Amino acid sequence: MKTVKLTLEYDGTDFNGWQIQDRKSRTVQGVLEKAAKTIFGKKIRVYGSGRTDSGVHARGQVAHFRAETRHAAATLQSALNANLPDDVSVLAAVFAKANFHAQYNAKRKTYRYTVLNRHAKSPIERRFCLHYAHTLNITRLKHDAKILEGKHDFRSFTAAGSDTGPRQGEKLSTVRTVRKLNVTRKGDFIYFDIEADGFLYKMVRNIVGTLLESASGRRPAGEVARILRARNRTRAGTTAPARGLCLERVVY
Amino acid sequence: MKTVKLTLEYDGTDFNGWQIQDRKSRTVQGVLEKAAKTIFGKKIRVYGSGRTDSGVHARGQVAHFRAETRHAAATLQSALNANLPDDVSVLAAVFAKANFHAQYNAKRKTYRYTVLNRHAKSPIERRFCLHYAHTLNITRLKHDAKILEGKHDFRSFTAAGSDTGPRQGEKLSTVRTVRKLNVTRKGDFIYFDIEADGFLYKMVRNIVGTLLESASGRRPAGEVARILRARNRTRAGTTAPARGLCLERVVY
Repeated sequence: MKTVKLTLEYDGTDFNGWQIQDRKSRTVQGVLEKAAKTIFGKKIRVYGSGRTDSGVHARGQVAHFRAETRHAAATLQSALNANLPDDVSVLAAVFAKANFHAQYNAKRKTYRYTVLNRHAKSPIERRFCLHYAHTLNITRLKHDAKILEGKHDFRSFTAAGSDTGPRQGEKLSTVRTVRKLNVTRKGDFIYFDIEADGFLYKMVRNIVGTLLESASGRRPAGEVARILRARNRTRAGTTAPARGLCLERVVY
Repeated sequence: MKTVKLTLEYDGTDFNGWQIQDRKSRTVQGVLEKAAKTIFGKKIRVYGSGRTDSGVHARGQVAHFRAETRHAAATLQSALNANLPDDVSVLAAVFAKANFHAQYNAKRKTYRYTVLNRHAKSPIERRFCLHYAHTLNITRLKHDAKILEGKHDFRSFTAAGSDTGPRQGEKLSTVRTVRKLNVTRKGDFIYFDIEADGFLYKMVRNIVGTLLESASGRRPAGEVARILRARNRTRAGTTAPARGLCLERVVY
């Protein structure tokens, strides 16, 4: 029995997220398991490092599965890719330690959120960014971002109105350590690069939505610090849309 | 009467090219004229700097139209954008000289062709690049590219088998001046940036297809120079697919 570790890129636009839900929903896990079934002739469970929500993309999602095989990992990669649709690709496949687990062994993750900050929309980038036309105070954006770095209770930035409790695999605590929250402007694009030991449900999108409201002047100065301290899900800004979000990297 | 000059970005994937053909084909010119009709209440002819073929993109196509209006150019831009689908955007609208003509006044154009050169496909970039997995000799690619710079008869690189003669607005001669043909590698991507005073039908895609066949070793050394000298449409390589091509800039 081999444990195969996969690195995956996907365009989340036409997926109902990572996790298999029901027969009708098209999910990344679903198309991977379907490809694996074609190759191995039986059901193979594929485990991701975590769910990505409907519409969220990945350039470096990690997953694993266990299977009996005599093929080289590169052969399995090619075989999977030959059986996957155009919006998912296996970037790398390697044999991992027998007990490797994509979710439980993940130490930290990096997400990038992309904002297009200009008057006109971008047809070419439209699936992978939030178009935000308001003028932004970049100094304030960077200042606010730094407030959120470090170990904090991010309860204010979990999904507002979500009363379903923690999702599978989430810690019960809402304390997380954000190792990095860098904001960089490059031409008309603004990138939010967020690295943390774990993320609460919709945490990145709520942080980005709140930072944008602050930097566009729709929230008073000091508001981000107050929201963080409040530990109240109703205080944060609008959830930024899924299409701007991409899971870049999972570190083990 | 005002002459309005537009700078346009579009995702060519779901268009049958720039030029209006018939009622059923979805074209960039068609959706622009439809938006203009909504705004001005009558038919407005929109002229582009040239056609782009089915599936070809633009980050800097230029077009113009003439209309009676008392609105500011920025207002017209917003009005057009409000009436355009997600895959076309007016990046800029300015009033030009009364006799400005997007096609006849164009001095030169720049196209970029994007190749993804790695084993695995890219779901995120798939609409905007050619996935080419063969190993490429980049030194040879750059060397061959330089051979095509300058004033040459590019007859070998027009559409093979095309016997319909020059398209509207094309010079009868197949001599063109390629001011620049730069090949740059950035990670797994290879960019072909081509600037010329004019382009023959499918010239960029035939050049890229030929350069790739040479740099992957499927053509002997010296072949690109021989193909250029041959002035024979049957000698060049395969036409590279439309999705990798983008009209970047038109200079007046």
